[in-house]
Amino acid sequence: MRFKIITNILGLIVEVVSLFMLLPLGWAVLDKSPDARPIFVSMIIGMALGAILLLIGGRLSREEMRPKEALVAVGLSWILASAIGSLPFWLSGAVPTFADAFFESVSGFTTTGATVLANIEVNSRGILFWRSLTHWLGGMGIIVLGLAILPFLGVGGRQLFRAEVPGPVPEKLTPRIHQTALLLWGVYVFLTVLETLLLYLGGLSFFEALTHTFGTVATGGFSPLNGSVGQYNSVYVDVVITIFMFIAGANFALHYKLLMKKDLTAWWRDEEFRFYLYIVLGSIATISFVLLKNQIYSSLAQTARYVSFQVVSVLTTTGFVTADFEQWPAYAQLLLLILMLIGGCAGSTGGGMKVVRVMVLLKHAGIELKKLIHPRAHYSMKLNKKVVEKDVILSITAFFSLYMIVFVVAFLLLSLMGLDLISSIAAVTATLGNVGPGLGVVGPMDNYSTLEAPIKWILSFCMLFGRLELYPMMALFLPDSWRS
Amino acid sequence: MRFKIITNILGLIVEVVSLFMLLPLGWAVLDKSPDARPIFVSMIIGMALGAILLLIGGRLSREEMRPKEALVAVGLSWILASAIGSLPFWLSGAVPTFADAFFESVSGFTTTGATVLANIEVNSRGILFWRSLTHWLGGMGIIVLGLAILPFLGVGGRQLFRAEVPGPVPEKLTPRIHQTALLLWGVYVFLTVLETLLLYLGGLSFFEALTHTFGTVATGGFSPLNGSVGQYNSVYVDVVITIFMFIAGANFALHYKLLMKKDLTAWWRDEEFRFYLYIVLGSIATISFVLLKNQIYSSLAQTARYVSFQVVSVLTTTGFVTADFEQWPAYAQLLLLILMLIGGCAGSTGGGMKVVRVMVLLKHAGIELKKLIHPRAHYSMKLNKKVVEKDVILSITAFFSLYMIVFVVAFLLLSLMGLDLISSIAAVTATLGNVGPGLGVVGPMDNYSTLEAPIKWILSFCMLFGRLELYPMMALFLPDSWRS
Repeated sequence: MRFKIITNILGLIVEVVSLFMLLPLGWAVLDKSPDARPIFVSMIIGMALGAILLLIGGRLSREEMRPKEALVAVGLSWILASAIGSLPFWLSGAVPTFADAFFESVSGFTTTGATVLANIEVNSRGILFWRSLTHWLGGMGIIVLGLAILPFLGVGGRQLFRAEVPGPVPEKLTPRIHQTALLLWGVYVFLTVLETLLLYLGGLSFFEALTHTFGTVATGGFSPLNGSVGQYNSVYVDVVITIFMFIAGANFALHYKLLMKKDLTAWWRDEEFRFYLYIVLGSIATISFVLLKNQIYSSLAQTARYVSFQVVSVLTTTGFVTADFEQWPAYAQLLLLILMLIGGCAGSTGGGMKVVRVMVLLKHAGIELKKLIHPRAHYSMKLNKKVVEKDVILSITAFFSLYMIVFVVAFLLLSLMGLDLISSIAAVTATLGNVGPGLGVVGPMDNYSTLEAPIKWILSFCMLFGRLELYPMMALFLPDSWRS
Repeated sequence: MRFKIITNILGLIVEVVSLFMLLPLGWAVLDKSPDARPIFVSMIIGMALGAILLLIGGRLSREEMRPKEALVAVGLSWILASAIGSLPFWLSGAVPTFADAFFESVSGFTTTGATVLANIEVNSRGILFWRSLTHWLGGMGIIVLGLAILPFLGVGGRQLFRAEVPGPVPEKLTPRIHQTALLLWGVYVFLTVLETLLLYLGGLSFFEALTHTFGTVATGGFSPLNGSVGQYNSVYVDVVITIFMFIAGANFALHYKLLMKKDLTAWWRDEEFRFYLYIVLGSIATISFVLLKNQIYSSLAQTARYVSFQVVSVLTTTGFVTADFEQWPAYAQLLLLILMLIGGCAGSTGGGMKVVRVMVLLKHAGIELKKLIHPRAHYSMKLNKKVVEKDVILSITAFFSLYMIVFVVAFLLLSLMGLDLISSIAAVTATLGNVGPGLGVVGPMDNYSTLEAPIKWILSFCMLFGRLELYPMMALFLPDSWRS
């Protein structure tokens, strides 16, 4: 373990994150809000800390990073970025304690969208802008952002990129990591501009259009409104956001091919995308059926609108809310819980276990069933017409086991702290999956403010485990990682 | 697929099961109960059906069975045995519908112990004896029973044995299957006699000692009393049953080595047994701690007594109840739900996923974590000092995925039928894991009688899927199994 390399990375990431505070500072100054001062102070603290880290780190190494160094660097970067990001909330008094501020900041960067703000609208636009901006920065990844804007990180960058964008089969768009990061951020910025424009044309103020767009393209879920997207009660807004959530939950490498390479069938040719689409359509169809049967809404059109929005919002792990799905029948609630666990596609901004992993698990189970009937036949798994090696299957099944282990440990801890059964299960699912709203005391119409501080810390770490797909966080807890 | 071989097996199993109705018939005649008649009629119907099947089957084949034939034969045997076994309940009027009778019978044979009898004690001893006897027959396996008492089944027996006693690494005690089956049943009978004696000495009537023993050694859970074992409120009874449940949840091959081969360290040398013991002790310790902190019981002794009983009862998937664990804090309930999923050891009469499978999943996850830090190092998994091959790991991870798929499908179906969230989850866990009592409307103080018929059918199949460890039941639903 070479600590200087890691210190360098940390310093750079902290500088980048701190510099982005200029934007909320701008809003606060524009509004002559008293929050301008705490935001400015936060930025200065962040930049000073970053400078100290860079000083300690010394000259940037020209050597390739080792995998464990990259994992530790990514894990620590996210914790540190969240800590710096929490300062504006804490120093402005928007939240009462540091535990709350850290929770809100982690929830932002990890694009979870779980909030401890009971009344969101009392906050200044500066604070609310920062809150939504953390989504946007974390959505495509703060390390990927660093790689995109700091080309000199390129040497050690390959390992860093793999550690932050793990996925079972990460797609490289170009041989050079700096360029790949730049292209991904390019697509991301393009989608951001497009959605902001569409929402602005739909009558939203520039501020609200921008913040809701951040929440959408990052599959985050923070809204500057108390009633989330549902407050507009606008079919146009619902449709625009549903479409962009769906796009944000799909692989950005496909969007790149579609937009930049004019490869019009890129989406459809991808097996994961097709499966993702089937999950969305199947869930919308069955939940709508159950809701119609139970006469929850008065018309088919209304049912389809609310169900589509909620299914896409939950599966992509965005967490925007237009309907109180706790009032829906048990089937709808259970299916939504399962969708939270599945999550978006690999290479998307969505959380959860990722569609492709679930596909591999299903195919693997199917092959074992076939073997049962024909024990001597030879089967191999294919994905996008390519054979999936046994070692890849083994690592995906291990990921599934680890995910379940983190899940079980977290909800035993929560229940140990006195949270009830449904709330424990739902809170872990919603934070580990980076969704945001769950069921029970953390349901779509509630928030996380009433939970005790230790619970907030546990859930903060659940969000980090979920966003980084376990490994960088686990590496921090393994003594082996710290050995030289 | 050679149907005649399967028909033969089915005929033999039905004959064996029907003949065992002589025992409850004896009790009914002894008590001059009007239930003697329906029990006798059930037996005649069963024997006649068995005879017809044997006639259709013709002469027993001397050829080795194919794996898929064995799977289908085992799956159908269990369904048919449960159907025949349900006749006494149905014809005697102990339950109102065939759906109820089938549920009770499946629950018996699969050693689940979920009951639809709201008032158990109003039933005759003949009916109650049959109910408990189904546990005993299903506990060690009706096919294994057939193999033990019908030596001429030996030729095709190896595949049948493997299909009913799958486990990831089934231990052969002797090269001959007939002898292995005989030895396992020998140990089983020995434990049965011993526990009956101990309970009888503790003041229970012979009838109650015997029926509770059946429920214990088969890890079943049916009690002839409305208040289950808790009704005695006897420390002695609680301790005896706790110990025998624990033994029944461990591998019977180990008991054989201990009892017959005088291998005194057989238990301790087995890695699965040690882990099983750690789970029991760890769960008892933490739940007791939480209960003491919440002052659920007045003393440490009382807490330890109720917690030990319930932890062992739930982990071994027995389902006897001495305390209303729905009144315990959320942590205790969650941990009990997880224990239900884990279940007993391979080669025990317990249900669930089996301790050894969970161990392999955990070790597999641990190895992937190590690989993360040292990507170039080579790791291999060991169990009982032997290397576990990659293909074995792959098949166990596939089993885990399939288990989760069955789980998810079943509870979506239940919630679709209007069952609430917690009850859906708990009912599937309790039946798929062959435990019996769950939480919510199927909690330890409730029963399954109030559920609608379609829900009872789904849960009946959950019990069969769980007891046969999925594959024989899944084979029935695969079109491939039925092709020639």
